[in-house]
Amino acid sequence: MHHSLTGTGTHLADPRPHVVIVGGGFAGLAAARTLADAPVRITLLDRTNHHLFQPLLYQVATAVLNPADISVPIRWLLRKQQNATVVMADVDRIDPADKTVSLDGGSVLLSFDFLLLAAGARHAYFGHPEWEQFAPGLKNIEDALEMRRRFLLSFEAAERASAVGERDALLTFVIVGGGPTGVELAGMIPEVTHHALKGEFRRIDPSKARVLLLEGGPRILPAFPEELSAQAQRDLEALGVEVRTNCVVTTVDADGVVAGGERIDAHTVFWGAGNQASPLAKQLGVPLDRAGRVSLNADLSVPGYEYIFCAGDVASTTTDDGKPVPAVAPAANQMGELVGRNIAHTVAGSSRETFRYFNKGDLATIGRHKAVAVIGGAKLRGLFAWLTWLFVHILYLVGMRNRLTVVVQWAYQYLTFQRGVRLITGTTVHRLLKASKAANDKRRAA
Amino acid sequence: MHHSLTGTGTHLADPRPHVVIVGGGFAGLAAARTLADAPVRITLLDRTNHHLFQPLLYQVATAVLNPADISVPIRWLLRKQQNATVVMADVDRIDPADKTVSLDGGSVLLSFDFLLLAAGARHAYFGHPEWEQFAPGLKNIEDALEMRRRFLLSFEAAERASAVGERDALLTFVIVGGGPTGVELAGMIPEVTHHALKGEFRRIDPSKARVLLLEGGPRILPAFPEELSAQAQRDLEALGVEVRTNCVVTTVDADGVVAGGERIDAHTVFWGAGNQASPLAKQLGVPLDRAGRVSLNADLSVPGYEYIFCAGDVASTTTDDGKPVPAVAPAANQMGELVGRNIAHTVAGSSRETFRYFNKGDLATIGRHKAVAVIGGAKLRGLFAWLTWLFVHILYLVGMRNRLTVVVQWAYQYLTFQRGVRLITGTTVHRLLKASKAANDKRRAA
Repeated sequence: MHHSLTGTGTHLADPRPHVVIVGGGFAGLAAARTLADAPVRITLLDRTNHHLFQPLLYQVATAVLNPADISVPIRWLLRKQQNATVVMADVDRIDPADKTVSLDGGSVLLSFDFLLLAAGARHAYFGHPEWEQFAPGLKNIEDALEMRRRFLLSFEAAERASAVGERDALLTFVIVGGGPTGVELAGMIPEVTHHALKGEFRRIDPSKARVLLLEGGPRILPAFPEELSAQAQRDLEALGVEVRTNCVVTTVDADGVVAGGERIDAHTVFWGAGNQASPLAKQLGVPLDRAGRVSLNADLSVPGYEYIFCAGDVASTTTDDGKPVPAVAPAANQMGELVGRNIAHTVAGSSRETFRYFNKGDLATIGRHKAVAVIGGAKLRGLFAWLTWLFVHILYLVGMRNRLTVVVQWAYQYLTFQRGVRLITGTTVHRLLKASKAANDKRRAA
Repeated sequence: MHHSLTGTGTHLADPRPHVVIVGGGFAGLAAARTLADAPVRITLLDRTNHHLFQPLLYQVATAVLNPADISVPIRWLLRKQQNATVVMADVDRIDPADKTVSLDGGSVLLSFDFLLLAAGARHAYFGHPEWEQFAPGLKNIEDALEMRRRFLLSFEAAERASAVGERDALLTFVIVGGGPTGVELAGMIPEVTHHALKGEFRRIDPSKARVLLLEGGPRILPAFPEELSAQAQRDLEALGVEVRTNCVVTTVDADGVVAGGERIDAHTVFWGAGNQASPLAKQLGVPLDRAGRVSLNADLSVPGYEYIFCAGDVASTTTDDGKPVPAVAPAANQMGELVGRNIAHTVAGSSRETFRYFNKGDLATIGRHKAVAVIGGAKLRGLFAWLTWLFVHILYLVGMRNRLTVVVQWAYQYLTFQRGVRLITGTTVHRLLKASKAANDKRRAA
């Protein structure tokens, strides 16, 4: 069944191959753009209406930026590309042999000639999915709003708490995972507690809040050179963050965590550890790695299906020297572009290219004006690394307006120490405390 | 029971009278600020953490502004006022004789010496509360996000619709109520459909969307002089809005509305008609008017309780010439200030003042650069009225940062015709269509 969704109604007579792209993140968008002049028709499917600049999501979670500052409507980005149709839909089944995807509970079936699965990843909870309710991760706008809500509400609840222990737990923030997300989150919190909230509370002192960054491995930022890991740890400690390495989390519940054998009472736990690829990968029926990702051919096609590709966080590939390609935006971009080119090559009857990851560098920011970076082999730190970080992020932010408002908000924040987006929506202190109590009671009963 | 929530723990010995303010809107905030130097201690309670600049809420609903652009943390506004404590809490009971309010399901009881109830209003649905699910109103950030979601999703769903009738219903927007909210909402939609979404869809033409403004009375903007009502109607019609007066809505359901005896198929209906005061007003046990508001003494105290006051949309008062004081921000401000002064007078042992409403003027904007205004008896229209509107709103926007980012976004929008905040969160097209179908089935079965 060729559903009319896919074109103008005349597409049954349209001889162009149909490319279906699942996911409008960095990989999916790059593939669609690469195919702009190819004789194909493209349908890009996404559950949301926006492309998200994920690298700045932690700034939404910590009340620096608005959600819309880092999200752009996908159909706005592709408005001038006449061979592309953007459809907001949930994909729930892929039939690789039949060459169809089914949308929205099977109500729509879509045939494809080429498929790119670029549906991204969620967090991995080390086989403990029940931890997610206590320790949300940071992958999409909803996640960031949930984090912001918990983060800001904890101060409101602490101001009202009557027991000292409860107050301390409400003012303890635990971040699990010492990768870039964990480091950047941890580095932002002291800015808020020491400056933005200063003088606003009558019963608590927000600057007394504890921030702990827990990393299971021997050092934070394991993808960086050792000396930069050490520098980042010193920078974080200078901000008052307690960094614990070789510290494995064994329990997460409504009271906090057990880490390295010690219980830490904390009302707010954020998760920045490990990825689990989209469950859609399973539907391809090919072997997956431990993180649920698809191991691909050199041309990024799926073994056994030369017309199906994967890219981004759902793909498992290696660099020239055999290391895994990291789950970062530039890698997703490069994969998406290669998939676009390989589809165009196939349509044109020419041979496909092999994926080669080009590492543009690694960057992680720490607080107000520090960062660590490796760019072209050069190791940067301190203010210069931070300025590099700033430049790169503004440069890559998609959409002129977003670039402008982000710069305005950063400038405001930098000059005034204020947070511009301290908005709590969707819940109340009462519901927060009640939910936390209910979760606790349930756990204790179990 | 004097709960420790209300102070630093030493307040049992604090001889200052305790003023409890319920609601951090214009009225509550004005009262708190007026009492800055009075020998009282103030507890301001609000369900949210932010003061909201409600007059611009329709711009959040139509994707011009971010929620945080028009909301400022209440505790930030009062951070320097040491006699004020801000508490985020739900008030669920008021005992006027016992002088207590109970919070969060009775878990906290708070004693007061003076109470200001400034809890605002929700929409009135003419005795049909079941209409609310089909026709959300616009009172708080959640409302505005719900409206934005429905507004933006309807285009996404229309792009996917296969039946012409369904597509037309998805592209029909009905606004019930020809007051300033309805007029301003109706005037913004053509901007989006004709400009912001241009060229982004492949199967629908957003500029073909219908916008209907339905008013039960003989003219829109009934608070304005007749000639300005007529001007506003002409301005709206020039934008393509169908304005229907003397058009009473008798049914609202998932298919649309029945208005003036005619069924209008519309997937999206917005409500801007009539106010219903906060249900907390009932707990005072005094007579209420038809809109659930408290009729007050001349000093804004509640009949029978000289230590309890009402202000803002929960209060029913009249102007010097016997007309009802309108439910607008300047009126709420003036009432709040008077309550603050009257509490200070009472504490100082002097006599109370009588409330006198000073009408600063009326303003309503229509689309991109039109407005109507009455200021000091002068009737303004067109571009000059619009510039006045712009100036007044920027002037009154609370918080420097908000003023700055609002100006940036307005400038961007004005110059590019783009909408900056086209973000759909919290639901999907699939869920939207499913919910609408379920509501329909249920209605037909009934």
